Amino acid sequence: MPNGYNSRILRVDLSRRTTSVETPPDNFYRTYIGGRNFVAYYLLKELKGGEDALGPENKLIFAPGVLTGVPASGTGRNSVGAKSPLTGVYGDAEVGGHWGAELRHAGLDAIIVEGQASSPVYLWIRDGQAEIRDARRLWGQTTGECERLIKEELGDRAVRVAQIGIAGENQVRFACIMNDLSHAAGRTGMGAVMGSKNLRAIAVRGHQSVALARPEAVTAFTRWFREDLKTNRGAAWLRDSGTAGMLTGLNAMGGLPTRNFREGVFEGAQKISFDVMKANILVGRRGCYACAVRCKPEVASAGAFKVDPLYGGPEYEALASLGSDCGIDNLEAIAKANELCNAYGLDTISAGATIAFAMECFEQGIITTKETGGLELRFGQAEAMVRMVDMIARKQGIGKVLAEGTAKAAAAFGHGAEEFAMQIKGQELPMHEPRFKQGLGLGYAISPTGADHCHNIHDSAYARRVPPGLTTLGIFDPLPAQELSPAKVRMVHYGILWQYVLNCVGFCQFVPLDPGRMTELIADITGWNISLWELMKAGERSVTMTRAFNVREGRGRSDDYLPRRFFTAFTSGPLKGVAVNQKELEQATEVYYGMMGWDKTGVPAPARLQELGIDWVAKTLGGAKGG
Amino acid sequence: MPNGYNSRILRVDLSRRTTSVETPPDNFYRTYIGGRNFVAYYLLKELKGGEDALGPENKLIFAPGVLTGVPASGTGRNSVGAKSPLTGVYGDAEVGGHWGAELRHAGLDAIIVEGQASSPVYLWIRDGQAEIRDARRLWGQTTGECERLIKEELGDRAVRVAQIGIAGENQVRFACIMNDLSHAAGRTGMGAVMGSKNLRAIAVRGHQSVALARPEAVTAFTRWFREDLKTNRGAAWLRDSGTAGMLTGLNAMGGLPTRNFREGVFEGAQKISFDVMKANILVGRRGCYACAVRCKPEVASAGAFKVDPLYGGPEYEALASLGSDCGIDNLEAIAKANELCNAYGLDTISAGATIAFAMECFEQGIITTKETGGLELRFGQAEAMVRMVDMIARKQGIGKVLAEGTAKAAAAFGHGAEEFAMQIKGQELPMHEPRFKQGLGLGYAISPTGADHCHNIHDSAYARRVPPGLTTLGIFDPLPAQELSPAKVRMVHYGILWQYVLNCVGFCQFVPLDPGRMTELIADITGWNISLWELMKAGERSVTMTRAFNVREGRGRSDDYLPRRFFTAFTSGPLKGVAVNQKELEQATEVYYGMMGWDKTGVPAPARLQELGIDWVAKTLGGAKGG
Repeated sequence: MPNGYNSRILRVDLSRRTTSVETPPDNFYRTYIGGRNFVAYYLLKELKGGEDALGPENKLIFAPGVLTGVPASGTGRNSVGAKSPLTGVYGDAEVGGHWGAELRHAGLDAIIVEGQASSPVYLWIRDGQAEIRDARRLWGQTTGECERLIKEELGDRAVRVAQIGIAGENQVRFACIMNDLSHAAGRTGMGAVMGSKNLRAIAVRGHQSVALARPEAVTAFTRWFREDLKTNRGAAWLRDSGTAGMLTGLNAMGGLPTRNFREGVFEGAQKISFDVMKANILVGRRGCYACAVRCKPEVASAGAFKVDPLYGGPEYEALASLGSDCGIDNLEAIAKANELCNAYGLDTISAGATIAFAMECFEQGIITTKETGGLELRFGQAEAMVRMVDMIARKQGIGKVLAEGTAKAAAAFGHGAEEFAMQIKGQELPMHEPRFKQGLGLGYAISPTGADHCHNIHDSAYARRVPPGLTTLGIFDPLPAQELSPAKVRMVHYGILWQYVLNCVGFCQFVPLDPGRMTELIADITGWNISLWELMKAGERSVTMTRAFNVREGRGRSDDYLPRRFFTAFTSGPLKGVAVNQKELEQATEVYYGMMGWDKTGVPAPARLQELGIDWVAKTLGGAKGG
Repeated sequence: MPNGYNSRILRVDLSRRTTSVETPPDNFYRTYIGGRNFVAYYLLKELKGGEDALGPENKLIFAPGVLTGVPASGTGRNSVGAKSPLTGVYGDAEVGGHWGAELRHAGLDAIIVEGQASSPVYLWIRDGQAEIRDARRLWGQTTGECERLIKEELGDRAVRVAQIGIAGENQVRFACIMNDLSHAAGRTGMGAVMGSKNLRAIAVRGHQSVALARPEAVTAFTRWFREDLKTNRGAAWLRDSGTAGMLTGLNAMGGLPTRNFREGVFEGAQKISFDVMKANILVGRRGCYACAVRCKPEVASAGAFKVDPLYGGPEYEALASLGSDCGIDNLEAIAKANELCNAYGLDTISAGATIAFAMECFEQGIITTKETGGLELRFGQAEAMVRMVDMIARKQGIGKVLAEGTAKAAAAFGHGAEEFAMQIKGQELPMHEPRFKQGLGLGYAISPTGADHCHNIHDSAYARRVPPGLTTLGIFDPLPAQELSPAKVRMVHYGILWQYVLNCVGFCQFVPLDPGRMTELIADITGWNISLWELMKAGERSVTMTRAFNVREGRGRSDDYLPRRFFTAFTSGPLKGVAVNQKELEQATEVYYGMMGWDKTGVPAPARLQELGIDWVAKTLGGAKGG
């Protein structure tokens, strides 16, 4: 039955320098909903397994969702995915800004980039027309300069640019892709994949609105939503402080990653707090497309660390990874490192976590000034931290080793350095403590992309009261954050499904919108009589397909772990004595597999694939167990 | 978190002659939604397994759902459940009328009947107050006379009565419970359980409305719904002819059960059609509580078979079971047999199917006039058929054997009679051909209540076009009815979940209402921010709990079958050459288990119980495999 709401997919072959547009059959869009699910679908269908993530056979997929670009708060998101050079398995990053919305306004619902250009190029998309253009003069530039040059060349200041920086050009394994200079598709090294393809940027300009089946209903919704956000408590704190506002609270609860996750309390937390930022360096706010919340800081400084407001400012993840996790209480240094990450296209989380790792290795004597080129790479050394960001992006000195990420760097360092690599499946942990949020710790362990917070729940938020949104999913009872019972696994499981849905539809995980209202909005946009049941099933498809991708790569049960540090209790702070119980985590992992319909080795069972209407996935598993 | 919408459960101990009201904790109602799920919950929690279905330790549960009694079409339903004397496992029957709505208006959401009265009693419930009253003078009466006597005794003509007849008193294993004389809670012998408890009737009178969280929204809904039903094609045919209208169409397609399912085409179909009924004996229409459709016939005849309109008239199931399946084309005889079934409290389906079985046994020479007391019990013998209904209800002559149901009767007859017993788990097949609707055939095989159509889908209706309601569940593509592919299993699985939901919320499976609209209605009634995801999960809970009940009774994989007849092809008619492929059915059964998260023996896996938030079920399984 025709659904009248089809997706348009742009396919770009950089080796052959060809572009084409595909319109998948009816109900494809409704089944997969876009975003992360489109990424998973095409990567699973079109890769064979075993590819070199940095070779021409890898594919890089940009995918907004069905909500992206609809004029309402929270709709500025898109996914970017490829096989990850950081983890060797399914890679995916989620990002806000304006670029994804612009792509939808240009009439496209995804871009599949294939092959490898023989020299640097960029892609120019105008209202659905795509052109591959020379980018040699952009190569080596900061992201800011690159964007300026592209807008100048195209003669259109309203063009939106997604691009890599020199980190991506240099194929740093945690290089990111920047939307509009200050929004990063940060995780899993998607910038390195883009760099390996010699693709510096994708510039987009669109003059269409997203097609709406029931425009009046959507208008009524956006009017209601705008009003609701004015008084919604979930939006108020975001509008006030952005995610940066979380830092001092997490510190007070003992859950702020500090000195490479050794501790949960940072004595310098107040100095790097939002209050201090606001008092000293905050010069403005930014938001994503159409969003009334505007949670992104813009900071500037003319002090010791000259900070350019062009690149926005540090949010919570950057404040913690480049700050407390490196033992650094110098806010300007953090802001500078954040600026460099954005100007070079480096993931702030992995950058900070990798530097923290190197600092601990230095303090442990595993590396010395010999390796660091004379740098005293100790916790708290702000200058050294900023310097390391630059060296990593340029792959200079020890930066060349660290540019491989903590897992490979630890292997290179030897001498037990892997004990200090806070990574899962090769990806560095974001700034959320698995001992504090143990459900999130489980989420880290089982995530297809390694330690990742973009499709995970923060169970500390559900310890006293379950927010109304989650009750709609059938979770009624609050549970302590330091617990890994089957009931907690259920909460995590349902929460993850919903996070995946958000990453499929292209909606922000911070902007508060009840799942029921969101379902209505999607129905009004598309004309589908879609239900939350269908959306959650799309989430299950997404989790399952990403798992299948990893199974095809030979990964399984033993890749779902937490670093051993988290099985050791905190020795101080409010969480003194608290650790993750390894046996409980292992049991919870198996319960999670069971809930997902996976076998004990974590392979999706054929009947579950059939139940989700994705039997074709069994074929992609080929000889893999359970396939 | 309080949901402000709690259920009130009346518990009646007939042994001790006590009554009490329980209010389960917050979210109990939202988790289980009422109806069939309340039945499953209490039977699983409060029985231990191994009970005699006709002993005092069995419990009989009456449960309307969250929609029952709300003034809108389709809301006149309630479930009745107990361990079944017909199947020895989970028993449940679904019924319409006014009684369930009256119970809600009396402020109750379920009744749990325990123990056994020492002499006949009936229960009188007035606005939540319950009284156990003497019923000795009601014993042995027709249902019509019993209802008249109760109303007279209580001095209130508006009292609604659910009751057994003499078949229930005599503990015929397929005795039913009648609501308002013409609506039968027909299947699995609930009337025999009620009879075993010496409980003849439950009379109810209520003056309250169902509490509504958002009365204006519900009023707006009912207004819209009334208008929608006027033009809705799904309602039009029901209003025109009721289910009786299906008969000639099924016959034309070759799927009308004929002569004990030997054939799919009945040469006398036209004579027992709705058109003929309308032309000759139809004198009125009845409906359930608040329903605008009014699909129930009222028939009368002063001919050879004097038919009393007090008991309504035959719908499709009765027309086929007492008609074509017995080879009978005498509409008045069928109407008479239907009247007797209602007056005596016999399930028309099992009654007709048991008589058809006996007729085939007679024609095969397995039984003779010696056993029948001289009756020529051949296909097409209308007088004999009507006579048998009477003999079964009274357990006279061969009726005593047949009153045990086809499975036990076949065992008593011996000589290969079991080949002719069209039953699954001991319950006789309803009038839907598994060779014609093969997805429904799978549904029969895996149903916890044996061959049952009340929580099953008719896949023939989805062969050309998927109705919009099912697309909301994520089923988009039509599939041939004669197919048992994994995609078909998925369609059946999701369809069954939705049918269970209908039986939990107390909504008619015939009145057309989109699942999305229904979810909104439930939200407006209860104030819950409930979603279709939650409803479908409640359906999964229901399917899983009923399965667990049967596992506890030692039943498993080998009880999920179809009678061998259906593996043999039709030899004539439009479906000539069509049979169910036994191997395909077995594979489909295992695929279904996998989709439900059951192991290969059909036992729900612990992780699935945890995912559904019903871990407590594992304990009820005790030593059973997988428990």
